[in-house]
Amino acid sequence: MLTKHLGELCCNKLGMYGGEAHSLKVEKFLFEGKSDFQDVVVFESATYGKVLVLDGVIQLTERDECSYQEMITHLPLCSIPSPKKVLVVGGGDGGVLREVSRHSSIKQIDICEIDQMVVDVSKKYFPDIAVGFEDPRVNLHIGDGVAFLKEAPAGAYDAIIVDSSDPVGPAQQLFERPFFQSMAKALRPGGVVCTQAESPWLHMHIIKDIVSACRQTFKGSVNYAWTSVPTYPSGVIGFMLCSTEGPVVNFRQAINPIEKLDITTNRNGEPGVQVQKPLKYYNSEMHTAAFSLPQFARTVLEPLLTPAPSS
Amino acid sequence: MLTKHLGELCCNKLGMYGGEAHSLKVEKFLFEGKSDFQDVVVFESATYGKVLVLDGVIQLTERDECSYQEMITHLPLCSIPSPKKVLVVGGGDGGVLREVSRHSSIKQIDICEIDQMVVDVSKKYFPDIAVGFEDPRVNLHIGDGVAFLKEAPAGAYDAIIVDSSDPVGPAQQLFERPFFQSMAKALRPGGVVCTQAESPWLHMHIIKDIVSACRQTFKGSVNYAWTSVPTYPSGVIGFMLCSTEGPVVNFRQAINPIEKLDITTNRNGEPGVQVQKPLKYYNSEMHTAAFSLPQFARTVLEPLLTPAPSS
Repeated sequence: MLTKHLGELCCNKLGMYGGEAHSLKVEKFLFEGKSDFQDVVVFESATYGKVLVLDGVIQLTERDECSYQEMITHLPLCSIPSPKKVLVVGGGDGGVLREVSRHSSIKQIDICEIDQMVVDVSKKYFPDIAVGFEDPRVNLHIGDGVAFLKEAPAGAYDAIIVDSSDPVGPAQQLFERPFFQSMAKALRPGGVVCTQAESPWLHMHIIKDIVSACRQTFKGSVNYAWTSVPTYPSGVIGFMLCSTEGPVVNFRQAINPIEKLDITTNRNGEPGVQVQKPLKYYNSEMHTAAFSLPQFARTVLEPLLTPAPSS
Repeated sequence: MLTKHLGELCCNKLGMYGGEAHSLKVEKFLFEGKSDFQDVVVFESATYGKVLVLDGVIQLTERDECSYQEMITHLPLCSIPSPKKVLVVGGGDGGVLREVSRHSSIKQIDICEIDQMVVDVSKKYFPDIAVGFEDPRVNLHIGDGVAFLKEAPAGAYDAIIVDSSDPVGPAQQLFERPFFQSMAKALRPGGVVCTQAESPWLHMHIIKDIVSACRQTFKGSVNYAWTSVPTYPSGVIGFMLCSTEGPVVNFRQAINPIEKLDITTNRNGEPGVQVQKPLKYYNSEMHTAAFSLPQFARTVLEPLLTPAPSS
């Protein structure tokens, strides 16, 4: 819930994270609305720039959105050669699109976001994030990602990125096996998915279930990575990275380094959002490091994950 | 300040982190005292176990102390062969001692903590952390770490670990060049230090100053690593890892892997705190990964740090 009565603090405190709260000082509320799906709030914070809050949970802040958007996008797209066709499920703020558009090999970027209000609010209040929608390769579909993927042609995509909220309420289906099966079907052989997959500090039981469901579904490789996002509960968020049967994908190595693409895109004026701002968080070293897991998580997940090529 | 008036929430909100707060629900206050140096509070939290708070800043929780204690200790001690003599500055809770004592090569563990109350409170309320004091190799000195190091014989230690609070107030000197010079003098050639060094998300300007001071002082190598600690501001904390002139230390590789030592210590009953509990966070992969920096930090620090051997 958003607890505005606590003076100027906005609390990020849900049942899912009961017992703790992360609060940002509010300078000014900029938007408060209720869509068909959720409460949508935007405020200017004292130290994290503008903040987007959905159903009381901080989705992004201008200060630290870079790590989530860059990692959820480049971990999958830098792990495969020359991705051409990408689907984003969720991600209505446009940040993932902004990152996808750095890849000049890409010809088509589909996005299926359920909530038009998130898109509109992002375009109005977060222009540096919603800039992703300006890429001419982007096709925006407003609708249910689960239904969209059921209808998607088999083998259509090189990569699918699921930028969802937590597995409580409307997003729950995005963490279950039928949805994973739809994704596997919609990917070309050796295609990849990257889905938001919670915090190892808080949700190991959920993560274990997600990993098991992925193991049953994706016949290529199944991997877990994580990154630092200060304004998310416990300060980190994880990702499932899986590939379908076909060409082997070693997710731990960036074989399609974005640092190089970045320069190509800028210099030659190839498709993309004009001249991109430099990456803030991601680099090829961070890519590899993201797959190293703390011992407590490794002990639980290692039997379920694809072994690292060197071990 | 500790804001008990906010219902059952304990806020971690200081000037240094103005604009945000991390709050843990208090089940019960167990101890509230005022030492000659600071306010000392212990409470039982709803979801993070018991919590130690000094001057309103969370120092540790039972749930996530593992990552800080294991990383600040094993990053330096696993980077050199057979450490024999180690000094801990600060660390009065005993957690670093607990980790140091996993290393059976070590013959002597000196610790200089300024505040006897922290030691006493830890022994009473955090037995799984204060267990480090039970190691017969430990010599506890209550006093000022700066003065202790000025008096230390030259070349005495293989490693010095500085487990301090933040560089505001009494701990400020521990982040300045004269203290670094004392440490360099007290280390044997090729000896190593590891000091707490703030969050890249919040304190890049402080970190840059610390790195510059280290660069001027330590003639071996100068490195920066970081780790996830959910209850610290921004959810991460960094470490400076430096070596003196002499045998080259490549901090990025665990040449003295703790996983093996762990078994040796347990099976042979060599010096140590009897049978150790398994490591929760650290492993050799996490060791290497800790030195990968987000692009925004790398851009600022790379010119000042020792290049990675492969680059």
